[in-house]
Amino acid sequence: MKRITLNADLGESFGAWQMGNDAALLPLLGSANIACGFHAGDPLVMKRTLALAKRHGVSIGAHPAFPDLQGFGRRRMVIDADELEAMILYQIGALQALAQSEGLRVTHVKPHGALSNMACEDIAIAATVARALCAFDSGLILLAPALSPLAEAGSAAGLPVVSEIFADRGYADDGQLLPRHRPGASITDPATAFDRIAAMLREGAIISENGVRLPAQIGSICVHGDGPTALTIATGLRQSLAAIGYRLVSLPDLT
Amino acid sequence: MKRITLNADLGESFGAWQMGNDAALLPLLGSANIACGFHAGDPLVMKRTLALAKRHGVSIGAHPAFPDLQGFGRRRMVIDADELEAMILYQIGALQALAQSEGLRVTHVKPHGALSNMACEDIAIAATVARALCAFDSGLILLAPALSPLAEAGSAAGLPVVSEIFADRGYADDGQLLPRHRPGASITDPATAFDRIAAMLREGAIISENGVRLPAQIGSICVHGDGPTALTIATGLRQSLAAIGYRLVSLPDLT
Amino acid sequence: MKRITLNADLGESFGAWQMGNDAALLPLLGSANIACGFHAGDPLVMKRTLALAKRHGVSIGAHPAFPDLQGFGRRRMVIDADELEAMILYQIGALQALAQSEGLRVTHVKPHGALSNMACEDIAIAATVARALCAFDSGLILLAPALSPLAEAGSAAGLPVVSEIFADRGYADDGQLLPRHRPGASITDPATAFDRIAAMLREGAIISENGVRLPAQIGSICVHGDGPTALTIATGLRQSLAAIGYRLVSLPDLT
Amino acid sequence: MKRITLNADLGESFGAWQMGNDAALLPLLGSANIACGFHAGDPLVMKRTLALAKRHGVSIGAHPAFPDLQGFGRRRMVIDADELEAMILYQIGALQALAQSEGLRVTHVKPHGALSNMACEDIAIAATVARALCAFDSGLILLAPALSPLAEAGSAAGLPVVSEIFADRGYADDGQLLPRHRPGASITDPATAFDRIAAMLREGAIISENGVRLPAQIGSICVHGDGPTALTIATGLRQSLAAIGYRLVSLPDLT
Repeated sequence: MKRITLNADLGESFGAWQMGNDAALLPLLGSANIACGFHAGDPLVMKRTLALAKRHGVSIGAHPAFPDLQGFGRRRMVIDADELEAMILYQIGALQALAQSEGLRVTHVKPHGALSNMACEDIAIAATVARALCAFDSGLILLAPALSPLAEAGSAAGLPVVSEIFADRGYADDGQLLPRHRPGASITDPATAFDRIAAMLREGAIISENGVRLPAQIGSICVHGDGPTALTIATGLRQSLAAIGYRLVSLPDLT
Repeated sequence: MKRITLNADLGESFGAWQMGNDAALLPLLGSANIACGFHAGDPLVMKRTLALAKRHGVSIGAHPAFPDLQGFGRRRMVIDADELEAMILYQIGALQALAQSEGLRVTHVKPHGALSNMACEDIAIAATVARALCAFDSGLILLAPALSPLAEAGSAAGLPVVSEIFADRGYADDGQLLPRHRPGASITDPATAFDRIAAMLREGAIISENGVRLPAQIGSICVHGDGPTALTIATGLRQSLAAIGYRLVSLPDLT
Repeated sequence: MKRITLNADLGESFGAWQMGNDAALLPLLGSANIACGFHAGDPLVMKRTLALAKRHGVSIGAHPAFPDLQGFGRRRMVIDADELEAMILYQIGALQALAQSEGLRVTHVKPHGALSNMACEDIAIAATVARALCAFDSGLILLAPALSPLAEAGSAAGLPVVSEIFADRGYADDGQLLPRHRPGASITDPATAFDRIAAMLREGAIISENGVRLPAQIGSICVHGDGPTALTIATGLRQSLAAIGYRLVSLPDLT
Repeated sequence: MKRITLNADLGESFGAWQMGNDAALLPLLGSANIACGFHAGDPLVMKRTLALAKRHGVSIGAHPAFPDLQGFGRRRMVIDADELEAMILYQIGALQALAQSEGLRVTHVKPHGALSNMACEDIAIAATVARALCAFDSGLILLAPALSPLAEAGSAAGLPVVSEIFADRGYADDGQLLPRHRPGASITDPATAFDRIAAMLREGAIISENGVRLPAQIGSICVHGDGPTALTIATGLRQSLAAIGYRLVSLPDLT
């Protein structure tokens, strides 16, 4: 039976501010990418998110970001490689200590926001991310967009890499996500979202806006935790994936 | 041969700002308490301090604090127990990840500034600190002021506790440090500092400003990294302790 | 015709995080207390809140707080008087510059959260708050809880002071707010809230949980922006106050 | 008699961390660019720096930056124009309130670090900076590198602009500062520094590394507050400028 993981970004509340609907989304996931306090999350939010993940048997990963709470880690920043590597290690370790206190272990890492975008464009930044993971634990899974320089850098560093596609985003002919302002960049209809996912899984390829097929080993599907249709899409995906013969597992059960 | 550890607070630079003289002080120490980014330090400063500690074979501990960079962790804050516990875990973990990348392990924890002061006055806060250590690793050494509620809470929680005295501070008759504004609170003459330390070690007791003896198991002496006489005091202490038959070791070698 | 001002705390979103329902609440108010970036708000949120206040002709005040985003300014901190005064000035000025860019002027100040609570218990802290206002502009209105040391300190400093009561909180026999954990501390029923307000206005006194009357010059009623009944209470209050002969004005129109 | 202003960046300490030697440098200056808490400085540091400036009759300006304490405002960040404008206003206002409490007024603005660098490369960012100044007070002097897009944007916006040259930096043939890693980028010898300054003033032109003359109206010379030779260079410049007939004034006395 083929296996796949649904993943989403969680733990993005901060102090008095709520974001997302973690309690409803978590039971639908295989793995959760948990904010580590640099773009969102704080120690208590992290602890509560971990406790919730534990209850639902969802595997956990660090979701490190640039140090930019106000910008939610979405603003590009130019940070030296040494410092960026140390920042990523700091975030993974902070989450791991809280995980440990819940009897859990951080098993994957997925960079957030502008850090992820820059690591998907610049192989040097991608290599820095990979170096941070190796320095912590060379068995950590790097969860990265399919066909991205980030995924490449992870493989080159000898890390286990799982490639993800997005349920709600369109792709350009080179396999990269369409910029958000382009028509077709966002997919909001659950049925359409599922049809695209099913086609990409069946063909083992990213399918671009113009129908170009780019072969890719797809291990995970990213769903978004926010927005009115998030739960609908996640629930629908689970049923549809089961219907076409996929078993939904966590990232460590994939590899 | 009797053993003792010299410890000091290190890694308190931040970004472009320098503090202390870590490179000169480290070779004189057995153990270093490293700032974790909440009151001082940042990921790169932490990494560099760890690399320096490694070179000199100095054992490392986390020096967690309240989240207050501007106040250098010296301002009292009222934080709920759950949140405080999570904050301490966060800081220990962040340091541990960077330590791991240098092939090191965090072997002790010493709270900083207002967090330490409050944990030395309020047994509930002390217990929260102890709980955080246990949740991370019940083998972590708690480095705490001799005769303090913090040391008590650590023992009650089953943690290995090492009690420290201060080379440059006077004590009240109840064994607590004299408040800084009181005459005799600060000792700046290296010879006086050493004579007091030697007397306390010989008698196995804290000696107060009025000569009261309070029996205490003294395992470590805290020296300060800053100030013009810091290196002089540390160097003098090393020689004097050797002269009276002490072997200078790291905290893990004490217990 | 008697005059009164409805005030509420606004602009408490931060970066990607939303809080409150400013757009719906603002048209119901006379004056808005706007977060200044220390406990909530950021420059863009401040600018947008000011633009909204301008559109509805609502007067604006600074809502300064301790520097504690994660704790939403609700955690007690011990800060030296000089530093606290400078922090309050900093926040007032930041808001004033953004107000100026909208053609507005900051006409009042109301301390937030733990800063307000501490200034309502400790006359020295209250005096520091008052000093900050005087240093900026001795014509700034201090909006303070009726019968509080903060209101006293403002009057002693020669500031125009407006005393407020709370629509949704119970009072102790000494005129202070009941702590939130006490029965009767929170009033959620709009009709009850209004009856209490009407009685206090009619009698010109705070009425405690045990019916004690404490004469007070009441100039403003604070409504809360958050919670399911906030808009209902604010709308109801407006109608009921009009019905008993009050004209709803802004703070500068009161004095 | 020709007039010129020596300016420097001041108030760059933060909390417990010291930077620069403001007390020694201030008496040598005409105008001070004061950090506003985003890259350095805090409310108390700002207040003390303002008091010092007042004592020496030095005019004051805001030195706004990206919100990046750890990176000292030297890391490039991509921030939307609306948000950047609001951030600059916020910082100017914060400084103005503290200045007001000392009986002073902010009379100029000079962007710091990466914000300045980006505004000297990108006319859209330069225009955003100029817009922020106009929104606060269209009489604010913009202090900008000679021949830079930032200076241009200020003039286009109708602001009074003063162009500065650097005592300790080399110039490329297009009039921009040589990147720091290039030979000749840094000038550390005070005599050389002065000869270059004198030649540029005499010729009314920037003189590049290859001797290209780029006519420029030079109103101010920036000296750096940090480093061993800062005071020597500033003292030497004052004497040398006097010797060639310049009167040293503050920025508002220039225009």
